[in-house]
Amino acid sequence: MAAWYQDLRTDNGPIISARVRLARNVTKYPFRTKLSEESAKDMIAEATAAIKDDHTEWANQIQVIDPATYTENDKRMFLEKHIISPEFIKNDLPKGLLLQNDFNVSIMINEEDHIRIQTISPGDDINASWEMANRIDDLIEESLEFAFDKEYGYLTACPTNVGTGMRASFMIHLPMLEKTGQLKNMLPAISKFGIAVRGLYGEGSESMGGIFQISNQVTLGKSEQDIIQGVQSVAKNLIDKELWLRDKMMDKHRLDIENNIFRSYGILTYGRKATVKEAMDMLSEIRLGYALGILDLPKPYKNIYQIMMEIQPGHLLWVAEETVGKILNETEQDIMRADHLRRNFSRN
Amino acid sequence: MAAWYQDLRTDNGPIISARVRLARNVTKYPFRTKLSEESAKDMIAEATAAIKDDHTEWANQIQVIDPATYTENDKRMFLEKHIISPEFIKNDLPKGLLLQNDFNVSIMINEEDHIRIQTISPGDDINASWEMANRIDDLIEESLEFAFDKEYGYLTACPTNVGTGMRASFMIHLPMLEKTGQLKNMLPAISKFGIAVRGLYGEGSESMGGIFQISNQVTLGKSEQDIIQGVQSVAKNLIDKELWLRDKMMDKHRLDIENNIFRSYGILTYGRKATVKEAMDMLSEIRLGYALGILDLPKPYKNIYQIMMEIQPGHLLWVAEETVGKILNETEQDIMRADHLRRNFSRN
Repeated sequence: MAAWYQDLRTDNGPIISARVRLARNVTKYPFRTKLSEESAKDMIAEATAAIKDDHTEWANQIQVIDPATYTENDKRMFLEKHIISPEFIKNDLPKGLLLQNDFNVSIMINEEDHIRIQTISPGDDINASWEMANRIDDLIEESLEFAFDKEYGYLTACPTNVGTGMRASFMIHLPMLEKTGQLKNMLPAISKFGIAVRGLYGEGSESMGGIFQISNQVTLGKSEQDIIQGVQSVAKNLIDKELWLRDKMMDKHRLDIENNIFRSYGILTYGRKATVKEAMDMLSEIRLGYALGILDLPKPYKNIYQIMMEIQPGHLLWVAEETVGKILNETEQDIMRADHLRRNFSRN
Repeated sequence: MAAWYQDLRTDNGPIISARVRLARNVTKYPFRTKLSEESAKDMIAEATAAIKDDHTEWANQIQVIDPATYTENDKRMFLEKHIISPEFIKNDLPKGLLLQNDFNVSIMINEEDHIRIQTISPGDDINASWEMANRIDDLIEESLEFAFDKEYGYLTACPTNVGTGMRASFMIHLPMLEKTGQLKNMLPAISKFGIAVRGLYGEGSESMGGIFQISNQVTLGKSEQDIIQGVQSVAKNLIDKELWLRDKMMDKHRLDIENNIFRSYGILTYGRKATVKEAMDMLSEIRLGYALGILDLPKPYKNIYQIMMEIQPGHLLWVAEETVGKILNETEQDIMRADHLRRNFSRN
């Protein structure tokens, strides 16, 4: 099975991935802030059993991971792969992670809520993500009773998740809207629709390489389908604007756009060091150039977003420690990053 | 015969070329500011005859050019090739140009002085240039009597040339002295030795690509050998400092230096437009990288200084008008410049 970030088809369009996250709490335990260590362990055991006791082919290939065995590098890499959340490595309670082999499904136990189901699909197929999350939700509910209020819906640790407990999101590449500053102007209007536009690594994170996460802020008083449609509608609007802007800019500034793209490609294939920001900006140009048909990529090539993840500090540190047993300083990371880019993009 | 700027060996060291210029005036005509059109024409005829009547193999291959037949593009290109001077195309008197096929010798008639003999050799061989200039000087003196004063020496239009009428100069690539700002600090001391450091196109011209012209300012009260030794001595000093600085910087900042060189190479081989300044800066990095053994160049390759000349506006305009009969605007020049760089440096 291939991970969502290995799908080469998504490089052609702005949408990289579609994610659904469901927050659930079980009635028999207090919410996480009041959860004892003992109960936290029971929680992990019961949620794990709810999945693994199913013994379907799917359930059998779910890995059960104890995050306490993670190194700092493991955690950083898993964060960068969007498998776990920053919150998941913050609090001190015992935790569990159930992970589908291809990383497209991860279930965090004792994150902010008792259970967080996360499913990611390549491209814009958010319905696939929703169906998968829904099936897992049903499966767990066969064994565990979820905290649910007739009026409010699912009860969650943070009131912003009460209701469906759902966050639906797209990861989108919007280089032209960002570069021209037009995205900034659109944010207030988007916010009024109850939709948030965030950077690469979610809440409070900076945008890098023109990558944004578009997700619902409201979970209450709406059905899951309404939430999905709301996010889809705003995403479609953003993408339409991005594509319209690409056309317009190509009409007016084709030479400058081509020059930027090819210069980025030249630096990627020859540079000897690169910061994360430099690398992300160049990869964004390459991704835009590929989508515009300006630049072809050396075959065989990797999904560009996969490379965007691979050049993040956690990935580099993880690989270096696994392969040469060395903790890289910042300059060494910059060198390794440039090496990795050269290996992936050079035609020589 | 190869032109001085085609010699591939000079790319290894800082010195690109060695030039000698002799200013001469003949006694039978008034100095140029008082020269009639009639006498100017006679001057051209007599100086031309002094060379061509020699009928040696050398004299036979000297082209006799009437600069009045030059287009604006011809003039600009010849200026950029250092064959003629800005002064030569300024005043309105009839002029003559005697040009050796390989461009290593040019004799301007009715520039600032009646006769200006210029010889250029590749690399640091200024004695070769001096011997050639001296032979031509003797040859012309067989036919024409030069204005010469026992006390002062050769008399010239501008008092700064009185004496030997000689300017000896090196064209030198000093990227590290320039980048670190150390060259600027050295200029006052150099000036005290009667030596001038000028930009790529002589007096008043800006430096580009780390290229400088080092020449004597004093022509009076010194022998030609003294002048040459003075310029050689300052040039040697500058080169020693440049090479010492390269070593030192490579010890301390090898990664940054390599990164700059390779990024420049990447942009050169992929960029779609480039200004003169951008191109010169990148070519300077390439030349430095080649000299340092960091970068090898695709074979067959051209002398880098030759490419520095070829991407100047006059060269581009000349080629475009000759090949496609078109006068390029600035953007078209930037595109053609980038194309030319790609063609010369790409490995694909």
